[in-house]
Amino acid sequence: MFFASDNASPVPPQVMAALAEANQGYAMPYGNDPIMARVRARIRAIFEAPEAAVYLVATGTAANSLSLAIACPPWGAVFCHRQAHIEADECGAPEFYTGGAKLVLVDGAEGRMTPGALAAAIARTGGSVHGVQRGAVSITNATEAGTVYAPAAVAALTAAAGGLPCHMDGARFANALVASGATPAEMTWRAGIDILSFGGTKNGLLGVEAVVIFDPAKAWEFELRRKRAGHLFSKHRYLSAQMLAYLSDDLWLTLARDANAMAQRMAAGLAAAGVTCDHPVEANILFPRLPRAAHDRLHAAGAAYYPMEALTDDRPALARLVCSWSTTEAEVDAFLALVSG
Amino acid sequence: MFFASDNASPVPPQVMAALAEANQGYAMPYGNDPIMARVRARIRAIFEAPEAAVYLVATGTAANSLSLAIACPPWGAVFCHRQAHIEADECGAPEFYTGGAKLVLVDGAEGRMTPGALAAAIARTGGSVHGVQRGAVSITNATEAGTVYAPAAVAALTAAAGGLPCHMDGARFANALVASGATPAEMTWRAGIDILSFGGTKNGLLGVEAVVIFDPAKAWEFELRRKRAGHLFSKHRYLSAQMLAYLSDDLWLTLARDANAMAQRMAAGLAAAGVTCDHPVEANILFPRLPRAAHDRLHAAGAAYYPMEALTDDRPALARLVCSWSTTEAEVDAFLALVSG
Amino acid sequence: MFFASDNASPVPPQVMAALAEANQGYAMPYGNDPIMARVRARIRAIFEAPEAAVYLVATGTAANSLSLAIACPPWGAVFCHRQAHIEADECGAPEFYTGGAKLVLVDGAEGRMTPGALAAAIARTGGSVHGVQRGAVSITNATEAGTVYAPAAVAALTAAAGGLPCHMDGARFANALVASGATPAEMTWRAGIDILSFGGTKNGLLGVEAVVIFDPAKAWEFELRRKRAGHLFSKHRYLSAQMLAYLSDDLWLTLARDANAMAQRMAAGLAAAGVTCDHPVEANILFPRLPRAAHDRLHAAGAAYYPMEALTDDRPALARLVCSWSTTEAEVDAFLALVSG
Amino acid sequence: MFFASDNASPVPPQVMAALAEANQGYAMPYGNDPIMARVRARIRAIFEAPEAAVYLVATGTAANSLSLAIACPPWGAVFCHRQAHIEADECGAPEFYTGGAKLVLVDGAEGRMTPGALAAAIARTGGSVHGVQRGAVSITNATEAGTVYAPAAVAALTAAAGGLPCHMDGARFANALVASGATPAEMTWRAGIDILSFGGTKNGLLGVEAVVIFDPAKAWEFELRRKRAGHLFSKHRYLSAQMLAYLSDDLWLTLARDANAMAQRMAAGLAAAGVTCDHPVEANILFPRLPRAAHDRLHAAGAAYYPMEALTDDRPALARLVCSWSTTEAEVDAFLALVSG
Repeated sequence: MFFASDNASPVPPQVMAALAEANQGYAMPYGNDPIMARVRARIRAIFEAPEAAVYLVATGTAANSLSLAIACPPWGAVFCHRQAHIEADECGAPEFYTGGAKLVLVDGAEGRMTPGALAAAIARTGGSVHGVQRGAVSITNATEAGTVYAPAAVAALTAAAGGLPCHMDGARFANALVASGATPAEMTWRAGIDILSFGGTKNGLLGVEAVVIFDPAKAWEFELRRKRAGHLFSKHRYLSAQMLAYLSDDLWLTLARDANAMAQRMAAGLAAAGVTCDHPVEANILFPRLPRAAHDRLHAAGAAYYPMEALTDDRPALARLVCSWSTTEAEVDAFLALVSG
Repeated sequence: MFFASDNASPVPPQVMAALAEANQGYAMPYGNDPIMARVRARIRAIFEAPEAAVYLVATGTAANSLSLAIACPPWGAVFCHRQAHIEADECGAPEFYTGGAKLVLVDGAEGRMTPGALAAAIARTGGSVHGVQRGAVSITNATEAGTVYAPAAVAALTAAAGGLPCHMDGARFANALVASGATPAEMTWRAGIDILSFGGTKNGLLGVEAVVIFDPAKAWEFELRRKRAGHLFSKHRYLSAQMLAYLSDDLWLTLARDANAMAQRMAAGLAAAGVTCDHPVEANILFPRLPRAAHDRLHAAGAAYYPMEALTDDRPALARLVCSWSTTEAEVDAFLALVSG
Repeated sequence: MFFASDNASPVPPQVMAALAEANQGYAMPYGNDPIMARVRARIRAIFEAPEAAVYLVATGTAANSLSLAIACPPWGAVFCHRQAHIEADECGAPEFYTGGAKLVLVDGAEGRMTPGALAAAIARTGGSVHGVQRGAVSITNATEAGTVYAPAAVAALTAAAGGLPCHMDGARFANALVASGATPAEMTWRAGIDILSFGGTKNGLLGVEAVVIFDPAKAWEFELRRKRAGHLFSKHRYLSAQMLAYLSDDLWLTLARDANAMAQRMAAGLAAAGVTCDHPVEANILFPRLPRAAHDRLHAAGAAYYPMEALTDDRPALARLVCSWSTTEAEVDAFLALVSG
Repeated sequence: MFFASDNASPVPPQVMAALAEANQGYAMPYGNDPIMARVRARIRAIFEAPEAAVYLVATGTAANSLSLAIACPPWGAVFCHRQAHIEADECGAPEFYTGGAKLVLVDGAEGRMTPGALAAAIARTGGSVHGVQRGAVSITNATEAGTVYAPAAVAALTAAAGGLPCHMDGARFANALVASGATPAEMTWRAGIDILSFGGTKNGLLGVEAVVIFDPAKAWEFELRRKRAGHLFSKHRYLSAQMLAYLSDDLWLTLARDANAMAQRMAAGLAAAGVTCDHPVEANILFPRLPRAAHDRLHAAGAAYYPMEALTDDRPALARLVCSWSTTEAEVDAFLALVSG
């Protein structure tokens, strides 16, 4: 019963097999391995973006920060949701990578920025030399609240961005995509996204994210920033191999569907048990409000998940549950049994 | 016949097996995996440093730059050899990570700084507010010239450092260690080294380096800088597993001995063929001066290595050859056969 | 009728005379001029702080940013009011100077942070490696709303800061001081302030601010940061001379009293005219809500001030008026006459 | 007898008078004062550059660093002479302002880079992602050795720059200009200079330098960087007034001619006394080698200048003498009398 995060899961066998297969003989370093050429072609095909620049890094924070660094100058503002990972969970990496940009926080229910709030924040920013300037917009999909922006919602935000470069933090891109039924192109560049952090790690890889830059004008700058940050791997083939396996036979979509399905199973069970959740369950994360007794039983049984507030006898306390590709029905059912007592 | 770099080699089976073994069930992320606890204990034992802080990152540039960032303030000078990797091959990563420190270049034959040249460079630096201040010393072992500092040579440099923090870039630490016959402690903290980039990637791992901080006062700062730079891995167990395999059964030493032995075999063969090398062959790198005809034969046969200067008919042209754990006697002998023509 | 800002005023004759007097013969550069020694002694005496380090820079942004840079690491949070000058009016200078720290915005009526809101913001910050850490607190006095923290209010904030370094942005320190009746020591280090940006420019100088560091442990770091930022003046005597004149014969307090008195005269006149102001008028800034007709009359007469919202016929529109040492009763009365129509 | 630096001199009466004249009534802040409009027009006329962007800052380090920051990316190399002020005397300001660029040092006799050495340094830089890229060239005129580049020498360097942006550190631009007999345009944009730090402080101002950007495409970026660095003055009129006085009636040229003439008088006297100098005396700096007895007499008489090496009885010891606009014939002659003993 592990629901603490999708970054604690193991790796599916196809990915391990791909690593083993890649481990033959010599391979040119620094992204010049032949597997990377196939990854690039595959991502361009999947995204219907034959000109896109495609790079691999090993962590989501690297993907996001390097993306923002080519989108926003040091004196720029990055507009993002108040709960965005780049604001709350990266120890200031965007500020470090951009050379000191400012994150301007936008509110919105269910983890989603509204176009109106985004437009208002942008309107308040810039103009005179005294304040930071409008820099870039970053949209997290799926959100930290476990909700999903449909392509139309993304397009509404990028329209509100008024021409600013738009980045999507897609650490859980696959979960959002299968939830929405959209194509990768519809969810990204057709909706106005310029740069995508295309997550792999939370969805089953050892540690690989792709950065997809739909307008490759800044590709060389990205390469220099990546190298300068120590995120260019010499034995790059082991990143490439993971990503190629991920993209083969729709593995990435299958893994995300499995994770989302477990979240739906959990949501249904919770509802049946009379437990309410704080946000719609649209991807692989749930925020149930569980009575203290349920927390106690789960804790005693060793269930792993994050409480989001202090436990009291007065009212149910919020918890966060994350399902992953490796979550089993048995795990979900065992959890639900403990909730019901 | 691949001698272009030791970063193009595959990974030994013990490491792949360790990855597979680690891929079981859930594991706490961000370095809290149980394998990391074993890695930490093992490195402390190997280095006879029970208080050392030990961290893993995935690239040598990250290891070096994060190490320098905790050793040198933004207004400091990092003293290093003119050919040091941190100066020549990291696209300014030390400057980025330190917030703009200045690398002050020290000369010395065979890729080695001399204590006198180091002391002179330090003496010329700092004092008034107008120039950068004395910051840190970085010593590469094995050097970019393929030579090795013995512990006494390291100690002479750290003595010349006059109390400045001393970093060792040990991307090829194992190669230097087995060449010198020293213990890890003798080569590092007993010789005055404060922080070590303990390389794994060039010596057989997919992509892992340990940073060993002998005085752990700056450990928390290191953790924050690592996170902020996107170098803290969520699925950290896959780094830990590589490193644990590397340190088990002296695998790391065996791999380095194999690489160095192949370099010696090559050196002997070259000498027999009348080819001279630019630096003593002490680790796993050689710099032979090969006649144009030899270059042509090697090139035609598909041998991979870097020429270091333009080919002419006038004189032999310098080349760089790097052996790795996976270099075979057959590869070396085939190369030598082509040299002799 | 100039009420747009206190940074558009001329300089009192005592300061110009001091410049002329300083302009004799040679003087050692870079802060080693003899006038600076007198400034240092004078500020230590005024603040009853014989150990304080004292430095001069030429702009408020430099004073604030350099102060924050020695108080907050790159991965730290600076807690400040949402309307603070460092957040809204310095184009990201704190982020630039700190190497990418994050400003965490604290709310509070009348431009003042409440201790509770500050403590809550601090409590939400830091702890794990994933977020930025608690760095420093910055308190603006007088505030951007023209209100003043009394020493007890400052002490309540520094208590809430829980040991974090506390900076005071005193661009209008003199205005706050004379409004409160406190001594400089009471308003600063006795109330828990560690570093003060002691403003001179808005209160009558050509362009000089002092940074007063009550605990001088970081004095040398400050000197290096100042030099590295290009804020160490070679012909420093001309900064020193301004500041010495400012501190002589209580000129700085007289100038501030004059500015505050004009604000009070304006406030009384506005109240008599039935105009309400948005914040208590405690220093030298007022925020009246003026009917459109009054705005139109003032505009036609060439009165200079900033409207803070669009004019409509529906309701009075907010304006900001700033008095300075050079504001005359005649200017105030002329303004009031136009308000009344 | 003050020859320590030209930054310890007082300010000529015309400049003080201009300050007093500017000190009337209110003036718009932040460079919007009417005097600045006249400065801009005057500099454009003097440089025959009607499109040039013109900004004022208060220190040479600010002028240089902000100029380099718009010319060179964080991953770039700034090519400059080994003795350049930006390398030796600014505590790493260029690294700070550029976000971590690397200064690549070029050798050359008499303080002057040779085109060949510059071209070679550029040729060694960049190309692959592993090293820093070619960024900008910075040429100091007059040089730190007191020598001057004629326009043709500047043009030879900018040609060697191969299209890189070329900056001139003109802290002593006026001294170089009058020495060379060139026009401002010939010395700058007609010779391939893109950005000029046009010095005022060392040549008689309290503390003002102009940055002249001949191609204004980066003007807005400069304004943002200046503000963000705290180098935008609110009471900007006092900078403008200094610069306007400097440019009026050829004051700047007169001051420089006076300083250079005193250096020539000193050089002639030294030669007559049998003293040799290390570099040709072309501007306002001399490097004589003085016997110990002369040093002792000068020191006893209170002469201020910098010895550049330790005094010994064995041979004359190098000294640096700097003349300024305020140096008198009497000072020079008194110095010479002491040299002769």
